[in-house]
Amino acid sequence: MKNNYFKSIESASLGESFPLDKAINELSFNDQGLIAVITQDFTSKDVLMMAWMNLSALLKTLDTGQMTYWSRSRYALWIKGETSGHTQELVEMSFDCDGDTILCKVNQKGAACHTGRPNCFYLKTQVQNNQIVVVSKQIE
Amino acid sequence: MKNNYFKSIESASLGESFPLDKAINELSFNDQGLIAVITQDFTSKDVLMMAWMNLSALLKTLDTGQMTYWSRSRYALWIKGETSGHTQELVEMSFDCDGDTILCKVNQKGAACHTGRPNCFYLKTQVQNNQIVVVSKQIE
Repeated sequence: MKNNYFKSIESASLGESFPLDKAINELSFNDQGLIAVITQDFTSKDVLMMAWMNLSALLKTLDTGQMTYWSRSRYALWIKGETSGHTQELVEMSFDCDGDTILCKVNQKGAACHTGRPNCFYLKTQVQNNQIVVVSKQIE
Repeated sequence: MKNNYFKSIESASLGESFPLDKAINELSFNDQGLIAVITQDFTSKDVLMMAWMNLSALLKTLDTGQMTYWSRSRYALWIKGETSGHTQELVEMSFDCDGDTILCKVNQKGAACHTGRPNCFYLKTQVQNNQIVVVSKQIE
């Protein structure tokens, strides 16, 4: 969807910079006040999970360096790993071209997935034989 | 959000498989009939973009092997690269633990981003000096 602020800076040159607080204010949160977050392992580059942040979760993540999402089921801030110990330390955060997705590279402790698997994307499609196959196992 | 089908298979063992067509039917499309798709370069493992598919786009992607999304701005199927030539050949597709996100690994031709940059996540936050910095340039 069109975002005038991010459109206005899209032809900027390599190395050019803009105020972070302004960019955060201009992010496209959806009608539930949420923005999509992709979390990627900094070292392996595996995509670990996708989740959502509201503005408060985003600011808390930047402030603490610990990935904090918005739990749509519990309707509350969700400090990843607070219960399980499987925390995610933020290494890099980037915004996308139209300001509606955040990419976070993290140091993951233990399993990223609630099933105990290293990441959430363990169901791989096999179109040729009409199957999905479980491609990883629990690491604990 | 809870998805009973994906919950029912989450303790399956490594290598166990399930019917793909059933899994597709059980995916959690949102109230606009869309599901989030993360697209990752198969070789570099860079996250290229995030976009959305409806059921039709998903089936077309699986059928043709060419990434096809739903354009929320044009309200139409969007065969990636159809105009620009910057196509994405599907290599692997996976579903996540709760059936509401799809991860696609692709062979990307040219720029994934509409700005001509290799991927959409070129605005990197620098919290220490309150900036976002452009970290890639156009490849064409």
